[in-house]
Amino acid sequence: MSIPSRYQADIDRDRAITTPTRRTVVPALEEILFEAIPLLDHGFIRVVDYMGDDGAVVEAARVSYGRGTRKTSEDQGLINYLMRQRHTTPFEMCEIKYHVKLPIFVARQWIRHRTANINEYSARYSILDREFYLPAPSHLASQATHNRQGRGDVLEPDQAEAVIALLRADAEQCYAHYQDLLNEDESGQPRDPTRQGVARELARMNLTLNTYTQWYWKIDLHNLMHFLSLRADSHAQYEIRVYAEAMLETVKRWVPMCFDAFTQHRIGGLHLSAPALGVVRRLLAGEAVLQEDSGLGLREWRELMAALGRG
Amino acid sequence: MSIPSRYQADIDRDRAITTPTRRTVVPALEEILFEAIPLLDHGFIRVVDYMGDDGAVVEAARVSYGRGTRKTSEDQGLINYLMRQRHTTPFEMCEIKYHVKLPIFVARQWIRHRTANINEYSARYSILDREFYLPAPSHLASQATHNRQGRGDVLEPDQAEAVIALLRADAEQCYAHYQDLLNEDESGQPRDPTRQGVARELARMNLTLNTYTQWYWKIDLHNLMHFLSLRADSHAQYEIRVYAEAMLETVKRWVPMCFDAFTQHRIGGLHLSAPALGVVRRLLAGEAVLQEDSGLGLREWRELMAALGRG
Amino acid sequence: MSIPSRYQADIDRDRAITTPTRRTVVPALEEILFEAIPLLDHGFIRVVDYMGDDGAVVEAARVSYGRGTRKTSEDQGLINYLMRQRHTTPFEMCEIKYHVKLPIFVARQWIRHRTANINEYSARYSILDREFYLPAPSHLASQATHNRQGRGDVLEPDQAEAVIALLRADAEQCYAHYQDLLNEDESGQPRDPTRQGVARELARMNLTLNTYTQWYWKIDLHNLMHFLSLRADSHAQYEIRVYAEAMLETVKRWVPMCFDAFTQHRIGGLHLSAPALGVVRRLLAGEAVLQEDSGLGLREWRELMAALGRG
Amino acid sequence: MSIPSRYQADIDRDRAITTPTRRTVVPALEEILFEAIPLLDHGFIRVVDYMGDDGAVVEAARVSYGRGTRKTSEDQGLINYLMRQRHTTPFEMCEIKYHVKLPIFVARQWIRHRTANINEYSARYSILDREFYLPAPSHLASQATHNRQGRGDVLEPDQAEAVIALLRADAEQCYAHYQDLLNEDESGQPRDPTRQGVARELARMNLTLNTYTQWYWKIDLHNLMHFLSLRADSHAQYEIRVYAEAMLETVKRWVPMCFDAFTQHRIGGLHLSAPALGVVRRLLAGEAVLQEDSGLGLREWRELMAALGRG
Repeated sequence: MSIPSRYQADIDRDRAITTPTRRTVVPALEEILFEAIPLLDHGFIRVVDYMGDDGAVVEAARVSYGRGTRKTSEDQGLINYLMRQRHTTPFEMCEIKYHVKLPIFVARQWIRHRTANINEYSARYSILDREFYLPAPSHLASQATHNRQGRGDVLEPDQAEAVIALLRADAEQCYAHYQDLLNEDESGQPRDPTRQGVARELARMNLTLNTYTQWYWKIDLHNLMHFLSLRADSHAQYEIRVYAEAMLETVKRWVPMCFDAFTQHRIGGLHLSAPALGVVRRLLAGEAVLQEDSGLGLREWRELMAALGRG
Repeated sequence: MSIPSRYQADIDRDRAITTPTRRTVVPALEEILFEAIPLLDHGFIRVVDYMGDDGAVVEAARVSYGRGTRKTSEDQGLINYLMRQRHTTPFEMCEIKYHVKLPIFVARQWIRHRTANINEYSARYSILDREFYLPAPSHLASQATHNRQGRGDVLEPDQAEAVIALLRADAEQCYAHYQDLLNEDESGQPRDPTRQGVARELARMNLTLNTYTQWYWKIDLHNLMHFLSLRADSHAQYEIRVYAEAMLETVKRWVPMCFDAFTQHRIGGLHLSAPALGVVRRLLAGEAVLQEDSGLGLREWRELMAALGRG
Repeated sequence: MSIPSRYQADIDRDRAITTPTRRTVVPALEEILFEAIPLLDHGFIRVVDYMGDDGAVVEAARVSYGRGTRKTSEDQGLINYLMRQRHTTPFEMCEIKYHVKLPIFVARQWIRHRTANINEYSARYSILDREFYLPAPSHLASQATHNRQGRGDVLEPDQAEAVIALLRADAEQCYAHYQDLLNEDESGQPRDPTRQGVARELARMNLTLNTYTQWYWKIDLHNLMHFLSLRADSHAQYEIRVYAEAMLETVKRWVPMCFDAFTQHRIGGLHLSAPALGVVRRLLAGEAVLQEDSGLGLREWRELMAALGRG
Repeated sequence: MSIPSRYQADIDRDRAITTPTRRTVVPALEEILFEAIPLLDHGFIRVVDYMGDDGAVVEAARVSYGRGTRKTSEDQGLINYLMRQRHTTPFEMCEIKYHVKLPIFVARQWIRHRTANINEYSARYSILDREFYLPAPSHLASQATHNRQGRGDVLEPDQAEAVIALLRADAEQCYAHYQDLLNEDESGQPRDPTRQGVARELARMNLTLNTYTQWYWKIDLHNLMHFLSLRADSHAQYEIRVYAEAMLETVKRWVPMCFDAFTQHRIGGLHLSAPALGVVRRLLAGEAVLQEDSGLGLREWRELMAALGRG
């Protein structure tokens, strides 16, 4: 369970309250506001706040005095234009805040994106919950052979079972020892009064990297789309990609026009290098082009042929 | 007039609409939402959007699941603690967006703060309005003599009048020539059909630096407070300080606890250097300390004595 | 003249001194170090410092302990791979610092790139030189008609002459009045002792936007390439493009492998949107595609056909 | 041992080579360039590159054309002034790059400073070494009671011994299982050919948080000083503070004037809040002030009295 029931009650209480505002409201996003979307075995994302909508992008691009009486088709056209021409600043005018629960090794990839605001649950102050990520058998794979970064074939069922058992045993043992080190019960009293506990900031070092952590993560729409273009990509590790894919769905609810432009002009498209463009031009001219004389390396060639539907 | 009536109508229309939201609402800020606060002779700021409140800072610091049922006094205590200990990330969880109209030379100081999102009205695409800043006589001052950066005595009235006349004449002439260069009337037709106009991106170079521009400026609360601590300071140029002071008032409406902590612990306080701290300790020990043997330069000494009420 | 002779002497003196260092040295960049490269009528860029080379990108990607004994071909392959896969952080490990002299209206475009360190010559402290940009007749153009942002046809010679005369007269008059307002001679004494001068921070507002300013601008290689991909582009305004193009030449001297990867995989390439990719696939399949049934707008269609050599 | 001998050879080879450069060279920093400074049990920092010196700060503040013929005393005065007045941009003109080896839980604190460039050794691509941090007995402490974040008394020797044994056993076991999961020997062949290995990006999740990682970390001097003011502070966790303190020594070698200004005006000083300033003024006026009527909380009062030497 992602959300213990005591927290679900807090969420339900907040969801029950609405207040009038003069700000732009996005009903499709309000619908899921505060709700946890479960991910992996104990993780989630939930949208906890947002600012702006598709119209805010348009207003910023025009530096206008009000929402005006725009036509939807004009707005979509302008947003597409901004996306194509890489006029990125209007997309920075929308902001969203997520509460995320995620394994520490995923958090370490995620935080490399520096253009967000973050508050992480502190294991210097507080005690982490006993929750760790164990992959489902269908996501346990061998090392890719053609690519030093990535996964190959899914493991045989019995091997997968053994791997999961091992991960579970180590995580459980390390967590149990973490508790021994802390020597604190839930009310902060020593569990074993005959010895001292170790400071939280020290005890945490015994946890494994699949332990779950949490944070508030706030970012503007432009930088969010950049994050998603990298992390919802097929090259991204599965365990972060599921988060990115769930966030894409929230973007679709929040700013459907921007989502559409992003899908059409960024993640759905293809970047041709100069030699790849040369190959396309030669192919269009009816020439037969071989990899050897294409100016492309083997990997780039294969990716290009696949993208052009000649794979 | 800061706001031409056609824009005021847009603002009034937006202000008349309220919609229910599950997000946190700050009534004191909603009250002035979209309204232009006039500054200088043609400038303004207006709050056009915001995210979060004092509670959002507390929730982020605690990485909590909901607004909870906090006591106000506990929240203020936590916020003071965060401010004193420079735990700045919780303050980044609130975001505000302003629409600002300001002279170009002020915009050039302002934009040096890089931690905000900006969309400026583009003089490549559009034609700037005929509005330029002329200082009031009471703000026309000579160069400071004790400080290479700053103002000294206010000018004599007749000299001030001459200065304003000169500034006005040059700005008007340059703007008139800007229009000649553009050779466009309001419907985009040539004013003089016998000659070509010059591209907007070129014509703008003839404008003077007191011409007004506009932008949308969006920033988180932590970086806003940093901006305000520098620009609402007595060392800041008057023409940017009036903007910072008006923004301080909006912060007070928006996040009164953070405002209080900021006022008490940052801008209202005093930073003692190591030698200044030594002076204070010696004074407290009853020693008579002279500037010569204080380890402080004359300027730092004077500022210290003034701050300690011994000026 | 970009560089008054008193400054050229300073530059020559610095160029004459070499000191041994353990750091990586790039001879081709050292060759032009400190030298001003003239741009426009009074502007320049000069490289005043740098950190790292192509090898530093490779070392960072590998987190290695030393320069190693790499083969050039392997390094180029790795750099190409990093560029294609958007692994941008290794390119952030190289840093360069420029001293730039540029018109204020160009500086205002430039500074919107926020990922650099900047120190601008301060007109609050100091007095700006009497230098302003006047376009050459061949760069004076009318407003583009097909594109709200950009230039169309070059002006007729007599009109160009009239425009330049007007720009010159206004800039000269505004500068002369700036001096009157300051009322300071070169030694800081009043030119007219019967009246007070106006503070520098105020007087500067009378200058026109083509007045030259200067700054130190320091940036890492990744963010520099991003800047150059936007500002060396044909959509950029001519007056900033000349700076970007001159900087591209310095990048070529500094990190030739990165320059090559950047040229091949970024600025020389083409980004296909999802519908544009669909068009290419249909064309390759031998289908005749018309703009009307392409899913592309007219402008995107034209740009695509031109890029594919079917313009 | 921090540096295996095969790496020490690489370092020695790089140190043996010097090349002439026109850039500023800092002999005191060159002396230690590339050398690893050992920290904790397996960690280190080493300076691998730098740009600029004290003079670069002065040149940037003045936007000058060359190094000039300055007096040292003037430079120190200007640098002190910049530090006191929070003119931070000139300090951004110097850049330094470190290679750091550090436990993962320290890396997680460190990376929250977002204003640096980072390349971390990737456990998706590569296999981490068998090295983990085990605290010395003198650094094993109980949880602080007066402060939810921090350490209290050092553990009794026999308890410390037990803690270290436990940390060691878990780290060793988790690492051994990590190797089992990978099922790769040093040449990349399966250790056990009867079963598949698990992808590196998955296997790493079984490691404990005291495992060492490495990164290249590059930052400008202003942001470095900000980092050091927080992480060399007594409130910082010991395991990151040792890194900050070692870096302070490198800053002292690199930019001694900036180091001096930083020590005097930032970390050696004291920030008085508005009520604390009120207390100081009352004390100086000869009044007896009690905490109860001071307007300060107990903790702030105690810290103030201690800082004023009345603790």
